[in-house]
Amino acid sequence: MNLDSLYSELTLSTKKKLVLLVLDGLGDLATPEQGSLTPLESALTPNLDKLSKVSAQGRMIPVAPGITPGSGPGHLALFGYDPVEIQVGRGVIEALGLGVELKAGDVAARANFCTLDANGIVTDRRAGRIETEVCEELCSLLSSRIQKIGDTQVIIKAGKGHRFVVIFRGKGLEGPLTDADPHREGKPIPSADPVNAKSAKAKKAAELITEFYKQALPIIKDRQPANGFLMRGIAHQPKIELFEDRYKLKPACLAVYPMYKGLAQLVGMKKIEGAQTISEQFETYLNEYDNYDFFFIHYKYTDMHGEDGNFDAKRRAIEELDRALPLLMEKKPDVLAITGDHSTPCKVRGHSWHPQPVMLHSEFSGTDKLDRFTETGANLGSLGVFEAKYLIRHMQANAMMFDKFGA
Amino acid sequence: MNLDSLYSELTLSTKKKLVLLVLDGLGDLATPEQGSLTPLESALTPNLDKLSKVSAQGRMIPVAPGITPGSGPGHLALFGYDPVEIQVGRGVIEALGLGVELKAGDVAARANFCTLDANGIVTDRRAGRIETEVCEELCSLLSSRIQKIGDTQVIIKAGKGHRFVVIFRGKGLEGPLTDADPHREGKPIPSADPVNAKSAKAKKAAELITEFYKQALPIIKDRQPANGFLMRGIAHQPKIELFEDRYKLKPACLAVYPMYKGLAQLVGMKKIEGAQTISEQFETYLNEYDNYDFFFIHYKYTDMHGEDGNFDAKRRAIEELDRALPLLMEKKPDVLAITGDHSTPCKVRGHSWHPQPVMLHSEFSGTDKLDRFTETGANLGSLGVFEAKYLIRHMQANAMMFDKFGA
Repeated sequence: MNLDSLYSELTLSTKKKLVLLVLDGLGDLATPEQGSLTPLESALTPNLDKLSKVSAQGRMIPVAPGITPGSGPGHLALFGYDPVEIQVGRGVIEALGLGVELKAGDVAARANFCTLDANGIVTDRRAGRIETEVCEELCSLLSSRIQKIGDTQVIIKAGKGHRFVVIFRGKGLEGPLTDADPHREGKPIPSADPVNAKSAKAKKAAELITEFYKQALPIIKDRQPANGFLMRGIAHQPKIELFEDRYKLKPACLAVYPMYKGLAQLVGMKKIEGAQTISEQFETYLNEYDNYDFFFIHYKYTDMHGEDGNFDAKRRAIEELDRALPLLMEKKPDVLAITGDHSTPCKVRGHSWHPQPVMLHSEFSGTDKLDRFTETGANLGSLGVFEAKYLIRHMQANAMMFDKFGA
Repeated sequence: MNLDSLYSELTLSTKKKLVLLVLDGLGDLATPEQGSLTPLESALTPNLDKLSKVSAQGRMIPVAPGITPGSGPGHLALFGYDPVEIQVGRGVIEALGLGVELKAGDVAARANFCTLDANGIVTDRRAGRIETEVCEELCSLLSSRIQKIGDTQVIIKAGKGHRFVVIFRGKGLEGPLTDADPHREGKPIPSADPVNAKSAKAKKAAELITEFYKQALPIIKDRQPANGFLMRGIAHQPKIELFEDRYKLKPACLAVYPMYKGLAQLVGMKKIEGAQTISEQFETYLNEYDNYDFFFIHYKYTDMHGEDGNFDAKRRAIEELDRALPLLMEKKPDVLAITGDHSTPCKVRGHSWHPQPVMLHSEFSGTDKLDRFTETGANLGSLGVFEAKYLIRHMQANAMMFDKFGA
């Protein structure tokens, strides 16, 4: 029997409130040059410390040993989905990141303007890194001229610099397609072809891309340096079981950055907009407490400073969150999990595969008798090291949401 | 390659003695109101402490993260079977619990007397909770009048209060069937139907149930309040690979309570009867030492007091076991594992999903340098957190029962 079916069969509805507080990229490394401490270990965190004394800890493998996840797989796992089984294409992630509200079946491509010579050969894959304003103007132009191809709606949205996304919304479309990108200069733009040659839906999507090029290239042909464009990561939004159906929990997303709102929306969470700081996010949680069962609260700055390799800034971001924490605890949730979607060690200056620490508090979490929430402490916790996709199952268990299995 | 096949292929016969000592529901939570200690942590356990200094420790996930097992799945995992793959129906567990010796293919139902009105509508699902004596008398009456239906033997055995079990022993039978129980008053008794409509064997079982009702209801129709009965959890005893074939170990069961004897018997363990206290169980072990390779010794009271939320009684039950332990060590087994089948935290007052601690001692276990056997200590142990179904593989390895895999 499939384990997901078993969980589903055992799930009970309760009136409990569950909170998943994600400090993006929280996990870090203790390196000798950092005084053998991580940002979390060196931060002053009186509120996390207090919680630690009545919580369980552990570490989570984001995807599989050694695998560094992007934000997509990292969050899908936190939401309890198998990130290897449910893969979300880069075009889809990029579109979500730009705040496009995708629907199941939409085919999305990340794209960027490039420079072509008179023979259609790519001479600069990034069109001299044009300014965002130029990109926005070109996207507006294309949008105004191409709204539909046949019965398929075309949505074009500018990103930063030379980057943009194109979404095809119509019936009977499917990815993935190969890249309409030679991946180096000196070659023409290849056609986007179905990865699975037998898929009629992918064939239709490929034909749309061809037609899109046919209509779009003449519109910008006299522009310099951005007289062409490349498309990559062409994929459709996969069918994903809705969070509410899967867990019998009504979920809300309190995130500031579009990418995380998009990922939450992908599984059917309700986005609650407006909050800009973590204190405001916690206040929104307090206001919405009665309206939802599950709150996903996303805090970006730990990851951002980890990417910059800025140890002090990452430490301060943790301290800022800690200062805001009493606000969240004004309406203490029945189950609170605090973790990251992956590690972003300052030493690595990017996402990494190192298991992120997790702290779980509920009436039934027990205490691991750890005075602080840290990577090193989490190694000693009762949750052990486990795959991130099971965190939500731990949360549900702590909310007494599972019936006993077998007599 | 299937992992079970690999284990099987590598298994060697040895003359080693392995003991699995199960303190039912041993695992517990350290909660602030309990002084942040578990019963195991607060108990005086000089003999377990001594053993801990030369043992490995770890924690075991009974089934899967967050899943709370009944005794059936809990023990099947300890016996090394996948408890999700091999599910034993409630009727079977109930029959085992009443000491019925089931055979593979037997279809068993848990049943209870109820009150029906003149139109066959259930007016009291528990027949006013009749006394056990009345239930026994009714079961005797039914047994004396219905011994066979066609070529199928019918076995009826009374339980406590209004509860009893019915076993159908014949050829070509199979469960599961839907419940012959409306699950609330004011409705007639529904028919028991095959869950898998395509199963001819389940269809035959369903017809037997219908015929059983036809014959049994007239026998008790003038009884008050127990003039009817409901049947639930109708399932057959699944085919399970025998313990001895699977592990090349001749197993004996030293349990006091029928349920655990039944579960041991399900995998072909020999029940050794007679002992009532843990000291007597250890004495039986000493007497039978030469006759078996594997001893499953079951101690119920840790679970019982956990279910009652009685911290002190659970602590004392652990201390009582500890006092008896030197007896077991008179003929020190080559491999000794001490654990629970799950946690039964006093705080929860029932089974739970929290990984139970396990201590493993052998000549090759090494020591984790832990002074005591506790939940918190077990978090630090060399066995880590692992699925309970692998415990027996650790035990076999410690008995040097596995050949090297590959060159």
